[in-house]
Amino acid sequence: MQLGIVGLGRMGGNIARRLMRDGHHTVVHDRHAPAIDTLLAEGAKGANDLAALVQQLDKPRAVWVMLPAGEATEQTIAQLADLLEADDVIIDGGNTFYKDDIRRAQHLAERQLHYVDVGTSGGVWGLERGYCMMIGGEQAVFERLEPLFASLAPGEGDIPRTRGRSGPSARAEKGYIHAGPPGAGHYVKMVHNGIEYGLMQAYAEGFDILKSKASDSLPADQRFDLNLPEIAEVWRRGSVVTSWLLDLSADALVADPQLGSYSGSVSDSGEGRWTIDAAVEQAVPVPVLSSALFARFRSRQQQGTYGDKLLSAMRFGFGGHVEKSE
Amino acid sequence: MQLGIVGLGRMGGNIARRLMRDGHHTVVHDRHAPAIDTLLAEGAKGANDLAALVQQLDKPRAVWVMLPAGEATEQTIAQLADLLEADDVIIDGGNTFYKDDIRRAQHLAERQLHYVDVGTSGGVWGLERGYCMMIGGEQAVFERLEPLFASLAPGEGDIPRTRGRSGPSARAEKGYIHAGPPGAGHYVKMVHNGIEYGLMQAYAEGFDILKSKASDSLPADQRFDLNLPEIAEVWRRGSVVTSWLLDLSADALVADPQLGSYSGSVSDSGEGRWTIDAAVEQAVPVPVLSSALFARFRSRQQQGTYGDKLLSAMRFGFGGHVEKSE
Amino acid sequence: MQLGIVGLGRMGGNIARRLMRDGHHTVVHDRHAPAIDTLLAEGAKGANDLAALVQQLDKPRAVWVMLPAGEATEQTIAQLADLLEADDVIIDGGNTFYKDDIRRAQHLAERQLHYVDVGTSGGVWGLERGYCMMIGGEQAVFERLEPLFASLAPGEGDIPRTRGRSGPSARAEKGYIHAGPPGAGHYVKMVHNGIEYGLMQAYAEGFDILKSKASDSLPADQRFDLNLPEIAEVWRRGSVVTSWLLDLSADALVADPQLGSYSGSVSDSGEGRWTIDAAVEQAVPVPVLSSALFARFRSRQQQGTYGDKLLSAMRFGFGGHVEKSE
Amino acid sequence: MQLGIVGLGRMGGNIARRLMRDGHHTVVHDRHAPAIDTLLAEGAKGANDLAALVQQLDKPRAVWVMLPAGEATEQTIAQLADLLEADDVIIDGGNTFYKDDIRRAQHLAERQLHYVDVGTSGGVWGLERGYCMMIGGEQAVFERLEPLFASLAPGEGDIPRTRGRSGPSARAEKGYIHAGPPGAGHYVKMVHNGIEYGLMQAYAEGFDILKSKASDSLPADQRFDLNLPEIAEVWRRGSVVTSWLLDLSADALVADPQLGSYSGSVSDSGEGRWTIDAAVEQAVPVPVLSSALFARFRSRQQQGTYGDKLLSAMRFGFGGHVEKSE
Repeated sequence: MQLGIVGLGRMGGNIARRLMRDGHHTVVHDRHAPAIDTLLAEGAKGANDLAALVQQLDKPRAVWVMLPAGEATEQTIAQLADLLEADDVIIDGGNTFYKDDIRRAQHLAERQLHYVDVGTSGGVWGLERGYCMMIGGEQAVFERLEPLFASLAPGEGDIPRTRGRSGPSARAEKGYIHAGPPGAGHYVKMVHNGIEYGLMQAYAEGFDILKSKASDSLPADQRFDLNLPEIAEVWRRGSVVTSWLLDLSADALVADPQLGSYSGSVSDSGEGRWTIDAAVEQAVPVPVLSSALFARFRSRQQQGTYGDKLLSAMRFGFGGHVEKSE
Repeated sequence: MQLGIVGLGRMGGNIARRLMRDGHHTVVHDRHAPAIDTLLAEGAKGANDLAALVQQLDKPRAVWVMLPAGEATEQTIAQLADLLEADDVIIDGGNTFYKDDIRRAQHLAERQLHYVDVGTSGGVWGLERGYCMMIGGEQAVFERLEPLFASLAPGEGDIPRTRGRSGPSARAEKGYIHAGPPGAGHYVKMVHNGIEYGLMQAYAEGFDILKSKASDSLPADQRFDLNLPEIAEVWRRGSVVTSWLLDLSADALVADPQLGSYSGSVSDSGEGRWTIDAAVEQAVPVPVLSSALFARFRSRQQQGTYGDKLLSAMRFGFGGHVEKSE
Repeated sequence: MQLGIVGLGRMGGNIARRLMRDGHHTVVHDRHAPAIDTLLAEGAKGANDLAALVQQLDKPRAVWVMLPAGEATEQTIAQLADLLEADDVIIDGGNTFYKDDIRRAQHLAERQLHYVDVGTSGGVWGLERGYCMMIGGEQAVFERLEPLFASLAPGEGDIPRTRGRSGPSARAEKGYIHAGPPGAGHYVKMVHNGIEYGLMQAYAEGFDILKSKASDSLPADQRFDLNLPEIAEVWRRGSVVTSWLLDLSADALVADPQLGSYSGSVSDSGEGRWTIDAAVEQAVPVPVLSSALFARFRSRQQQGTYGDKLLSAMRFGFGGHVEKSE
Repeated sequence: MQLGIVGLGRMGGNIARRLMRDGHHTVVHDRHAPAIDTLLAEGAKGANDLAALVQQLDKPRAVWVMLPAGEATEQTIAQLADLLEADDVIIDGGNTFYKDDIRRAQHLAERQLHYVDVGTSGGVWGLERGYCMMIGGEQAVFERLEPLFASLAPGEGDIPRTRGRSGPSARAEKGYIHAGPPGAGHYVKMVHNGIEYGLMQAYAEGFDILKSKASDSLPADQRFDLNLPEIAEVWRRGSVVTSWLLDLSADALVADPQLGSYSGSVSDSGEGRWTIDAAVEQAVPVPVLSSALFARFRSRQQQGTYGDKLLSAMRFGFGGHVEKSE
């Protein structure tokens, strides 16, 4: 198949590569010309602007926008909407808020254009392992584009089959699903990231306990000189907490058990926040997912927070307690 | 009545004073002699050691130990046990873990001695306002000591009577209760402090949100230049969140809206931790009380935690994300 | 002064009453005619529809809308906007989301109309105690309406003055503040309610621990037969956790220590949710306020949640654990 | 090697089997005779009581106790201590609290006996996949027993090697570690289970959000008819949240997307609670691990909690709010 791709950062570039490896044709654009040249050398066609990109695609066209969520994506989709024709498809592969997807899809539908949202997980490993994709959009449009998704997905690989499944592989077993109408793909991806934060924080807290048990500040008879890289490694073998995130933790701990190259200031992306907003909107209690997000917020405030200062002020007020450094 | 008091820090000294104001007699001891002299000048009898203190008391004796919980209290009680005689009473007014009370009471009972645990709230304000007391011990012993508790307690004051109460004031309305057998006093005080942490953190988080809404880092059109001292003040008048802790917050915010003299490193005492342990033991979910404790733990780690570093390491592992400073 | 009031429920009716007691004139409307008649009998003027209400007011007019937040308020304001004239003021005294205030104020400003948002706390007690008010709007408009706010507010009462305050009483000390531009009033009220949830949950968890310690299911030697009404009462006297919410708890516990008339299904209003959304938007960690909200969500699911069932399914998967009833 | 095994439940029996498959000799005892007979038929020697078991073992002996933590294990170890001789080893493979291990090891050392604690993960899958083991004890004793651990462990399998590791496989890569002195094995296993709870709750909350988004109670235009089995499946392919727990979730969801055979009443074991106690003792903030534990506590209270009833009572007190069923 043929696909236009706008945005050739790490994700966009690798999507083009993985598609071309599987025999698809790509027409690519990026506002930085060298990014186009790199892909040209790997077999893509290039376009210096969106109009040129649209012109080089056969109807009905499909254009994958792979840009930072927010203004960049919004504007590009607006421009494409003016250039495309009835029955063409715009695919947003970024980290868009699902309500923006719904709004856009309605707006584009008035112009006979289709909108598909693709939530992808896999990050820097996608080129090699394939992209896990959660896709929202009309059923017929999803099916039209399915050869692209099948090429981008990881496929069955050597992952043991889920108990109770039989017959030919379902799409999900190949690594992509049609989650529902526009917005559903990013909705599922949003929750995926919410879970991801929770899983990560569970490991972080556990290793924090282990680390603290090995601390010099404990009396020697209460201390265990635990070897954290070995603990992460052994848990990879048959324990209940095996996971890819544990594998990555083991990698990092082997490289440096002190994790000294990190400051511990942890960013968060929109999805983690939107997951909490969605839970609040739907009245679902999410103590773990929210705690994980708040731990990240707190990690970025290396100074005492205003709230903490107020605690100290109250303690001074009722008990005369003066802050001690520890 | 007559009472021996061991430990003349802020709490012990003021307990002696408040009792003497109400006509009781005190025999006091402290390992720092000047503390004894101060009380002598105010009408107390002094004792240079525990034996001298015991000798100056009439049988059945009552000795109030007002020392830091842990070793200091433990050893003093052991020494008193050797000096006292059948039917005498040891009162622990410190912040002792209630299971230690139970153990001690059983041990002292074997020697015909009584044990009373008194959880007190009121801190630096106790001399003036009186002490709110939660008392554990045998019923008859509690009643024997009741004149002391009545003098130490705040009394009815001008606090409006609870709807549905009638007749003469109950002890609780005067500011002290017999909570149950040995340990029950400190148990109730422990939970009091657990609640205290939760209340304080609720205000801290709320004012943190308000402060952040006034932050220069927000675009001007999303900012409200909120006046936090005025907000604390207005909430003292008829709002649902009125409380003594809010009064203290208002005091602090008037003195300095930036709370600049505090670093935000917040200590915690045993009670807050034991409350969580008790809840875990009793299988009671306490998300708010535990979150409040953990916020204090976190407040004391001004550097990135090991757990936060592991989060950064995982993010680098799956997404190539490099930490940004914000 | 003169004020139009739309919506004569408990809040609206009592606002009219409290204003009239202080010599103000009110013109009132409600879609239920008997509500109007009741106020007529107490000295108000009545209006059968919004047009009649507007006609009976002198310019520049002020109309207080006291309706459920959402559609009812939105439509009434839209209708009033068509009836009012330049320099008139619409006051929204309901529980509106502050971003809706900002939007409305901008829209009304295009028509030379003013918008004031009033967050009120005090509930059923307002008529008697006065309303604590947090007010958003233009400074000049706020000042124009100030006599009304002064009458509605509780005044200084017999609340001890905040340490460090001197001179004549500030507005906040009388029970109302000008929090900032449109939206600021409801923003501050929103955070007030977020704090309220946190405070309430702190007491709830503490009393849950106490209750569980008195449970028959514990072995007798681990049980304390705690008297919860007495504990709530004693904490009202000089303890750190004194508050109005504790007073109300004491009322309820005296009436029935088992709280048997309540099922424990706890509603939440928009403000509690919006507080979490605001914290997430502003990247402020709010573990206590969010835990309090989630406890309410959970309280309404008397059946096992889907998430809990998934936990059971996983446990069965890795350990063969079968659910036990307890 | 030769090993005595006491306790032939699912774990003990399969440990005997896995050892015998690898050529080791076992002498087994269980208080239920049929359990012994079953193992006899598979090649073990049997013993009708502990004395007989000890007699059939060569010196220095090793006896693995595989009983429920608590009294059963405690008494068996006490009896074995009386039967064993200098340099013999007692292994506790159960879920013992690590401070009990330390106490026991000190006590046994006075009698020249060794104590080894083995935390195992793998549950019902251990016979087939091998047991992941975290082992505490003296270095020399650990090494003496190492052939047993090597047989019980999963081995390297086909798990990709951790980046940065080279040379011959470390013990951890084979699935067992010497974590430290007595108690260290169970300490690490304890934290493992704490993490396990956190991971499980993260998935539970995520799927709860997804389920609720598909709920009939939502207006059709806000609903996504999400297919949860397909979502679990697709996440197994290249997503960041892949894990064994996700595999098990996928199994369960294929079998019944409604999880209708589960009530959602979720048990917890000692380790999850001790992890929180350890974190509190070590002043490590663990919002996610504690939230996960509390969610389990709450799952078992299908009735409204006392705390929730108090919330309702307070709401009635300040606002006249009457509970609504939803």
